[in-house]
Amino acid sequence: MNYIEKLQKSVSDGIGLCVGLDPVIDRIPEKFHKSRSPLLDFNLEIIHATSDIASAYKPNLAFYEVYGANGWQQLEETIKAIPDDVVVIADAKRGDIGNTSKAYARALFEGLKADAATINPYLGSDSIGPFIEDDRHGVFVLAVTSNPGSAELQALLVDDEPLSYHVVRMCRKLNKFSNVGLVMGATRPEMWAGLLETSQDMPLLIPGIGAQGGDLNAVKAALKSYKAPVLINSSRSILFASSGDDFAEAARVEALRTKEMLIG
Amino acid sequence: MNYIEKLQKSVSDGIGLCVGLDPVIDRIPEKFHKSRSPLLDFNLEIIHATSDIASAYKPNLAFYEVYGANGWQQLEETIKAIPDDVVVIADAKRGDIGNTSKAYARALFEGLKADAATINPYLGSDSIGPFIEDDRHGVFVLAVTSNPGSAELQALLVDDEPLSYHVVRMCRKLNKFSNVGLVMGATRPEMWAGLLETSQDMPLLIPGIGAQGGDLNAVKAALKSYKAPVLINSSRSILFASSGDDFAEAARVEALRTKEMLIG
Repeated sequence: MNYIEKLQKSVSDGIGLCVGLDPVIDRIPEKFHKSRSPLLDFNLEIIHATSDIASAYKPNLAFYEVYGANGWQQLEETIKAIPDDVVVIADAKRGDIGNTSKAYARALFEGLKADAATINPYLGSDSIGPFIEDDRHGVFVLAVTSNPGSAELQALLVDDEPLSYHVVRMCRKLNKFSNVGLVMGATRPEMWAGLLETSQDMPLLIPGIGAQGGDLNAVKAALKSYKAPVLINSSRSILFASSGDDFAEAARVEALRTKEMLIG
Repeated sequence: MNYIEKLQKSVSDGIGLCVGLDPVIDRIPEKFHKSRSPLLDFNLEIIHATSDIASAYKPNLAFYEVYGANGWQQLEETIKAIPDDVVVIADAKRGDIGNTSKAYARALFEGLKADAATINPYLGSDSIGPFIEDDRHGVFVLAVTSNPGSAELQALLVDDEPLSYHVVRMCRKLNKFSNVGLVMGATRPEMWAGLLETSQDMPLLIPGIGAQGGDLNAVKAALKSYKAPVLINSSRSILFASSGDDFAEAARVEALRTKEMLIG
């Protein structure tokens, strides 16, 4: 099964829940603090509690790199524990000159065994190429991000259109294996209308719901007739639903609640 | 000593040599292939042979991440072996929402103990903020990159100026501690004139000389009256100057030759 088939199957309702695996030591229960692999131990329980609900998991590499080689090891083990039918997105926001992007693609797809990666478009098509050269893996390229400063460059007008539209068009041209998707932040729905026209057949990854303040109903309304698989990401509100020993059960309840809101 | 003072001191001739520590297993001498830490062992000899010539070392994280946790460990050990008076730039091209950029900054500056990092500007100012919040560390933000597709987004016109000019202006506003520099690829000197006017007081990191085809004389001519420290990067032509057991001596000869061309 190639990447887009796996993604389509995992997002069977059109909109799927993506759980961001971004553990932070200060926010995970006390009982993990003495472990040599606290992030992994925490993640294993979260995965066990939510993998029948989640269409995808999205570990952000920053939260593992901060613990150096040991953190990287925990990330590798975390991904190994994710069931085969759930999509793994390495949220790495990489992008470099071709030769270097090739090494990053190997690190993420062969080393970590992620199905897909998030990519920063600033370096242009050849920086994305090595991640999408066959149909077994895919990317989500940053079009509109969910942070306060996202509009600073992304909304600059080029030929009367925001820069992000040009990113979407660049990505469309690269979408030979249907494995090029887009990141579109939920906090900027006002920038979406034209983007969605251009991106009809491209999968979407939508961060920014929950802790970051994005409005799920606005997002759902905009996506009503969208054709490709859509993943809505939630990280902190699921991971840290409870800081007590019931954290996994609380994460499950929150994941179910979120999933119901997505398809309801 | 803060970051800009360390950088200025290391680039005492105005233009300094930055050696890109991007080892590739297939291109390093046979004798390292059986080691548990081939990249580190190779780097140690390169550093020993060139650290009196280099103003900075710039390991690109991709070439270490491709070996997972073991690669990350080798990167950490590599950086430990670099003399204190030589600047270490983590070529990571990171950039994420504020909370995540903060974790990346800790990973690179506290974990790896790099002095500076390369940053991708697409997410805007708040993605750069955590890397420059005090004067002990700095960044080189991608303005113009050296790859074939760099112009695809970077040269798009916004208010009659290339997008990269807007990146430079955004960076200027962030330069409170004189710790914000720019990456300007040597393969695009035609895009430089206006950039240099705006970036007068900002350090520059210039990749693309050598294997990538940038013209050193054009770069030197453009930088004749430039005021801030400039680093010219060379990776492959120094690292792989010889594939034999004389690789370290050959690297030294090539580093000296390059350095002479820079200041000559």
